[in-house]
Amino acid sequence: MACENKYAVDGTDFEGIFNPQRLAIIGVSSRGVGFGNGILLSLLAIGYKGKIYPVNPKGGEFAGLKIYETVDDIPEEIDFAIIAVPAHLVPQALEECRKKGAAGAEILSAGFKELGTPEGAALEEEIKRVASNGIRVLGPNCFGIYCPKSGLTLLPGPDLSRESGPVAFLSQSGGLAIDFAHIGKWMGVRFSKVVSFGNGADLRENELIEYFRRDSETQIISMYIEGVEDGREFFRVLKNAASEKPVIVYKGGLSDAGHRAVASHTASLGGNRIIWESVIRQCNAVQVRDLWELVHTSLAFSLLPRRVYKNVSVIGGGGALGVDACDVAESFGMAIPALEKDVRESIEAVLPKPGSSAANPVDVANPYVPPNILKEVLLNAAGDKRIDLQMLIQLFYHYKSISRSLGAKSVEDVTPYRGLANAVEKVVKTTNKPVILVCPNIKQELEYIDIERMMRKTRRTFLDRGIPVFSNLKDAFRAVSHVSNYYERKVMREDRG
Amino acid sequence: MACENKYAVDGTDFEGIFNPQRLAIIGVSSRGVGFGNGILLSLLAIGYKGKIYPVNPKGGEFAGLKIYETVDDIPEEIDFAIIAVPAHLVPQALEECRKKGAAGAEILSAGFKELGTPEGAALEEEIKRVASNGIRVLGPNCFGIYCPKSGLTLLPGPDLSRESGPVAFLSQSGGLAIDFAHIGKWMGVRFSKVVSFGNGADLRENELIEYFRRDSETQIISMYIEGVEDGREFFRVLKNAASEKPVIVYKGGLSDAGHRAVASHTASLGGNRIIWESVIRQCNAVQVRDLWELVHTSLAFSLLPRRVYKNVSVIGGGGALGVDACDVAESFGMAIPALEKDVRESIEAVLPKPGSSAANPVDVANPYVPPNILKEVLLNAAGDKRIDLQMLIQLFYHYKSISRSLGAKSVEDVTPYRGLANAVEKVVKTTNKPVILVCPNIKQELEYIDIERMMRKTRRTFLDRGIPVFSNLKDAFRAVSHVSNYYERKVMREDRG
Repeated sequence: MACENKYAVDGTDFEGIFNPQRLAIIGVSSRGVGFGNGILLSLLAIGYKGKIYPVNPKGGEFAGLKIYETVDDIPEEIDFAIIAVPAHLVPQALEECRKKGAAGAEILSAGFKELGTPEGAALEEEIKRVASNGIRVLGPNCFGIYCPKSGLTLLPGPDLSRESGPVAFLSQSGGLAIDFAHIGKWMGVRFSKVVSFGNGADLRENELIEYFRRDSETQIISMYIEGVEDGREFFRVLKNAASEKPVIVYKGGLSDAGHRAVASHTASLGGNRIIWESVIRQCNAVQVRDLWELVHTSLAFSLLPRRVYKNVSVIGGGGALGVDACDVAESFGMAIPALEKDVRESIEAVLPKPGSSAANPVDVANPYVPPNILKEVLLNAAGDKRIDLQMLIQLFYHYKSISRSLGAKSVEDVTPYRGLANAVEKVVKTTNKPVILVCPNIKQELEYIDIERMMRKTRRTFLDRGIPVFSNLKDAFRAVSHVSNYYERKVMREDRG
Repeated sequence: MACENKYAVDGTDFEGIFNPQRLAIIGVSSRGVGFGNGILLSLLAIGYKGKIYPVNPKGGEFAGLKIYETVDDIPEEIDFAIIAVPAHLVPQALEECRKKGAAGAEILSAGFKELGTPEGAALEEEIKRVASNGIRVLGPNCFGIYCPKSGLTLLPGPDLSRESGPVAFLSQSGGLAIDFAHIGKWMGVRFSKVVSFGNGADLRENELIEYFRRDSETQIISMYIEGVEDGREFFRVLKNAASEKPVIVYKGGLSDAGHRAVASHTASLGGNRIIWESVIRQCNAVQVRDLWELVHTSLAFSLLPRRVYKNVSVIGGGGALGVDACDVAESFGMAIPALEKDVRESIEAVLPKPGSSAANPVDVANPYVPPNILKEVLLNAAGDKRIDLQMLIQLFYHYKSISRSLGAKSVEDVTPYRGLANAVEKVVKTTNKPVILVCPNIKQELEYIDIERMMRKTRRTFLDRGIPVFSNLKDAFRAVSHVSNYYERKVMREDRG
């Protein structure tokens, strides 16, 4: 498929849509209430750099910006519009934006096809008609676009990350788009673009997948889909995309009841569970079952080298942890093989006695083993050439006892998370084998909020060094298995030609 | 089976073991280091009320207590002993405690069968021999007993809850016992007794299950098992127990690799996955797959009325939430049926407009709907006679925006969690249908630690009123499904006679 403009899919000016320099917001009240005002404040808060032109027939001023009475009054052409007026006023507003040169518009307003009424359906048809004359539409009934680079943000999103990253997310649900963006912020997932397209009257899954396949800022495509409009084309674009980049699919409404709920949410056709699962598998896309799995998998694809991972070393403390690790690894198709004899001996030489074990999982016997020892253990374990990836389990909450026995010191001061992050970073560079930190917290009492704060600092410190952090082994293994399975199948398919 | 003494199973004095009045700790150093000193301090911290007799050949004093040079020097008979001396000294210490009248002892020391050496195996045989002469042994290689009523606590456990409750836990892993006790503390699971039995040289799964079946303080029996010694007897006691009380089984080492890890952890025979699953099912015990599922299921059995739950109303906000709820409910064999027309209309009458929906899931349209409205919605939804249980999803993290826009006020001050807890408590009393609070937190950034604190206060406030709180729908539905399936099968079995 030829592609002359890297920002265009079949003539659509995606540059104007995702990186607008001149933005109209239709439906900003000088009294300061409503969605239009909310999104305007969010754009200012997140630092959108382009020009903003608020519009309202009553005129006035808001947040220091003049409100234009009509779109036509705006003194220059616009690139993009955000429409947040009552449903019956939307088609006309959209037409005015089209005339003013906008490449696209996001319609935040609800009250269309999702109502299940003839009036709602008719209004949505009106939108499609205007769109077909030359303006691309996201929505209606959506939260719009979040693009850290340009400073566009979702409707309820003044405090999303301003850092760009490799993950694109297209979502039929606005709620899920904002949830993923929020969780991604602290879990370490960074986005190229997030698009909530709601009812999907115009731009929707197929064109967006195709756009993200071509978008050089996007390395990983993730999506929440309730139903598709053109199944055959979906299969084609999904397969194309997944042959080039990892594509993660969260299909909502796979159950019978969920299928019915889809109808009232975004009015799309859900389709059968077995068909969906086989389509996703045939395309070598990655299927996830809920939002958290979507986040974890996106994180793993973002931070892990593009490889197959089969054999894992697990370094932690406590025998049941080892049993659990083996059960979990096997359930995700990975192994925790016994380490080679000389590797085992080199680990035994540095581990504290008694109670430690240099088998795999490596049991370091107590939670206070210092970073320099853990570094040696990791370096040595990586020396076993079968090991593809290492997981380091740290029960940092135990440092609460240390902080108490030392009196005034806070748990942050006594927990060596910075030293460990530096050590792990060096291990990864030296060995070229990724390390994942697993940091569970069993002490979530109100009184131990300081442990939570220390753990959040730990997470951030490791993420700053490109090391993924998970709260439990199961999430970590599942995410790694998705990465591994994707690249394994990709290589097999490419070999077959 | 006759049972003359409610504390005895086949002659064992469990009262002396779980509620000792006179306790010896063998291996307390006047220098203050070691496991013996650690457990002594833990007992004092948690408020053990009986007499403590520390023992060490060097004598001296620790924590204001005289250290006796031998067990024989203790001026009266003892009920129970905690043994924390090097492995080779354990058999003799145990024999001395037996002679001093102890009903039982927990052996915290490691260095026995789990080593896989002839020496370790021989020492463990010695322990068995002494035990057979009339002292019951927990361990070796264990964390011992936690019993809030008597003030016994696990080795690393000075800060476990002092409240008793309905759940007994028997665990081959000390680490898992302490983890469950810690998580239970804030999740709301309260224990009658927790027993870590490690290598299980003497007292182990079969007798403990039988004891907990008879123990009037135990309403729910939970266990972590790596392997059993006598499979036929295990089947018999498990079936007996599960016919009287819910029994929750977490079997570790079901995978091939996990099976091997079991050998080095507690040296027990693991057994085949299919055999285990069919044994658990035939006994109508509840199988869980990890520690968190164990906690969640124990919580649900603790707080929910003993019934079958099939139809659930879900009250929350956001369309994708509804789709997800339906998918999750169906995957656990439950339904979220559309509410009856008059019920729906009564809910519509109180819900904010626009954007709300009184179908089931009920979409309340925004996260700021006040407790009095939610109370009406819950009361009305319970009026549909098919509804067995209600789940209320609260996205309390949204109150962060409110607290910010109001300036100085903290998120705790503006979040109506107390009012909602009171309202829900009244709903449960009025309708006799349980309500579960689901409180996800997508905003776990370092800067939003105040949201976490508010959520922990929320959890505690609801738990104080007997209302279970989960962090996500999946955990909640899975836990409820275990309760429902257990009682459904129990009734079927009883009907069959």
